[in-house]
Amino acid sequence: MADQPDIAQMRRAVALAARGLGTTSPNPIVGCVILDADGEVAGEGFHEYAGGPHAEVNALRAAGERAKGGTAYVTLEPCDHTGRTGPCSLALIEAGVARVVVAVPDPNPLASGGAERLRRHGIRVDTGVLTEEAENGNAAWLTFVRRRRPYVTWKFAATLDGRSAAEDGTSKWITSPEARADVHRLRAEHDAILAGIGTVLADDPQLTARPSRKPLLRVVLDSDGRTPPGARVLDSAAPTLIAVAEGTEISHPDVVRLARTPYGIDLDGLLAELYRRQVVSLLVEGGPVVAGSFLRAGLVDRVVGYLAPALLGSGASALGSAGVATLAQTHRLIFHDISPVGPDLRLIARPAPPKETDVHWNR
Amino acid sequence: MADQPDIAQMRRAVALAARGLGTTSPNPIVGCVILDADGEVAGEGFHEYAGGPHAEVNALRAAGERAKGGTAYVTLEPCDHTGRTGPCSLALIEAGVARVVVAVPDPNPLASGGAERLRRHGIRVDTGVLTEEAENGNAAWLTFVRRRRPYVTWKFAATLDGRSAAEDGTSKWITSPEARADVHRLRAEHDAILAGIGTVLADDPQLTARPSRKPLLRVVLDSDGRTPPGARVLDSAAPTLIAVAEGTEISHPDVVRLARTPYGIDLDGLLAELYRRQVVSLLVEGGPVVAGSFLRAGLVDRVVGYLAPALLGSGASALGSAGVATLAQTHRLIFHDISPVGPDLRLIARPAPPKETDVHWNR
Ligand SMILES: NC(=O)c1ccc[n+]([C@@H]2O[C@H](COP(=O)([O-])OP(=O)(O)OC[C@H]3O[C@@H](n4cnc5c(N)ncnc54)[C@H](OP(=O)(O)O)[C@@H]3O)[C@@H](O)[C@H]2O)c1
Ligand SMILES: NC(=O)c1ccc[n+]([C@@H]2O[C@H](COP(=O)([O-])OP(=O)(O)OC[C@H]3O[C@@H](n4cnc5c(N)ncnc54)[C@H](OP(=O)(O)O)[C@@H]3O)[C@@H](O)[C@H]2O)c1
Repeated sequence: MADQPDIAQMRRAVALAARGLGTTSPNPIVGCVILDADGEVAGEGFHEYAGGPHAEVNALRAAGERAKGGTAYVTLEPCDHTGRTGPCSLALIEAGVARVVVAVPDPNPLASGGAERLRRHGIRVDTGVLTEEAENGNAAWLTFVRRRRPYVTWKFAATLDGRSAAEDGTSKWITSPEARADVHRLRAEHDAILAGIGTVLADDPQLTARPSRKPLLRVVLDSDGRTPPGARVLDSAAPTLIAVAEGTEISHPDVVRLARTPYGIDLDGLLAELYRRQVVSLLVEGGPVVAGSFLRAGLVDRVVGYLAPALLGSGASALGSAGVATLAQTHRLIFHDISPVGPDLRLIARPAPPKETDVHWNR
Repeated sequence: MADQPDIAQMRRAVALAARGLGTTSPNPIVGCVILDADGEVAGEGFHEYAGGPHAEVNALRAAGERAKGGTAYVTLEPCDHTGRTGPCSLALIEAGVARVVVAVPDPNPLASGGAERLRRHGIRVDTGVLTEEAENGNAAWLTFVRRRRPYVTWKFAATLDGRSAAEDGTSKWITSPEARADVHRLRAEHDAILAGIGTVLADDPQLTARPSRKPLLRVVLDSDGRTPPGARVLDSAAPTLIAVAEGTEISHPDVVRLARTPYGIDLDGLLAELYRRQVVSLLVEGGPVVAGSFLRAGLVDRVVGYLAPALLGSGASALGSAGVATLAQTHRLIFHDISPVGPDLRLIARPAPPKETDVHWNR
């Protein structure tokens, strides 16, 4: 057994983990590769769905006796608590694994302590291997655990000049059928989807994902409870939460009441409520006013834009006022992925880390 | 000698031709590969600069005696007229070439007839090989010859939400130094660069290319002759043409007077004047009003957009009114090239061919 952890095995574990994307919420995605004492792959596993066995358990099962004296590569620190399955730390100890290599330490106070327990049992634990790649895959869950709010993705569709409707309000369809199918895949990766009352009144969207393995929670931002009883967002395809201002009378069965702020009802309060409901990932689908509010509040973790190769020159912008008065205040992002989707382009971007000059130094 | 033309040789000729980009105007770019009678490459050449020898002449020189009984692959039909150099058709005949393979027929009435003359001398001529690729490289020149106007590229820089300035007008810099350097390369490929008086008054740009092999003609659209005498666009770095409305008094030495239209002075008249001046390619650099006018008039052949990974939510749009009232009238494009440029993205798009349903059938 080589002394240096084998990056290639961790990369494999990261790839295995990704196979759980969309089905493990509110759990993280996790992958595990077990090598036997001779360094040969003995078993692989990943966390497939919430409530199902953890990655380590699946991999140990596959490895059987060969795990003894071997090494486990696991993308997330093995849990130490007895949830729906027993603690993974114990399973690794009982299987006689000699070494555990970890990508990301568990940020969850309930689950952490796994590495500690392993070490107490004489198992060598290496951490910090391929951390960035592994964190990327778990970005939503890590945000959920660390910030105690859902990971927020803002999705928009626009022309090359940033418009999402023509002068007369027509907007069907700016992007291609391929892009719209891609949006359904994107929705299916999320736990909840949100739109403002402006979009509900203008477009009457259903806000569902086809195909989807589980119904998404639909959320409407609607201070005064103006959502029409016949709106498609209230149909039986999925549950719907209406967020209204405190004191608003409304007959809908599932309502959250939030404080009014200068820019609509309180988004922090809304995200806290969604956190309580174990919504790990939230897709904000507009409109422009809602998107501007989330950006202004610093609550957008990822932007997914579908750009059509078209120019309008007039009509509504995809993004409304977002608290930027001068160029220095612009919301800076970093492009993360650029892909063609049919004739359109899908751009995925994330907020840029603050520049050094933006950092406040205490000295 | 194989009977079928060898696509790979024509591809090589197309690549050779591209090495003349930016220096051959008002001539086309042309590449030529000569194989000897055994099918071995005997000589290569391309048209390097206006006034210099044509591609065929350069390739024949390199091939020497080996051209006899050989095959010439040339991206454009060999010319048949005696310009600054003798006709290439004659040079190929005198060198004893047995066969000539052509990608694009010469659309220039003065130069065409080369294939005819070759055939009269018993030389086999094949045409239409790799035509699309070869036309792409000569898009500007072909537009110039066929439409009797310059090839027009509109360049813009904007945020992901299509804005080119923040609410307070600040716009320096939305894109990165890398993108701005790329713009200088783009300018250097053109014969002329145009801006509206709005941009001249707001930004006082110099409108030059650094580095450049020749000074670009700078053009200002300025109906009432408001360009300030001290404007940088009037400095000695390059010549400047000011386009004004008929009857406007102005002391500038180089002025073209054009009819007023509902959307500013007449762009067709301007392009006709530029054609007379042998301006093959024109770069329209804005601002939004000017860009909208060119689009409305159907005079944009290519769009080059630099998108910064940033969101503003307010501020001036990169594109102003472009004659689109409803979505069905949108200016549809096709993405042609997507490249990262530093942290930004460069998108190159061209007008989409009219849809079948847009075609009027006479039956
Ligand atoms: N291109 C795209 O991707 C896309 C996506 C979706 C929609 N759209 C278009 O967008 C248009 C509608 O957009 P819109 O901007 O008018 O409406 P919107 O963003 O859908 O909804 C805005 C409304 O939500 C309510 N709201 C409550 N709390 C809020 C908060 N904290 N922040 C923001 N809004 C809050 C406010 O109304 P109350 O005060 O009444 O609560 C506000 O006016 C439609 O034309 C639609 O077609 C485009
Ligand atoms: N992001 C970018 O890539 C970019 C590039 C350039 C500029 N800009 C910004 O754009 C702003 C200025 O743009 P703008 O839209 O106000 O002005 P503009 O487009 O530069 O110039 C428009 C003016 O040109 C004159 N004009 C004459 N004939 C015309 C015709 N046929 N079509 C259109 N215009 C004609 C008109 O003024 P007269 O009637 O007086 O002749 C018209 O108002 C500046 O803030 C600048 O920073 C951005």
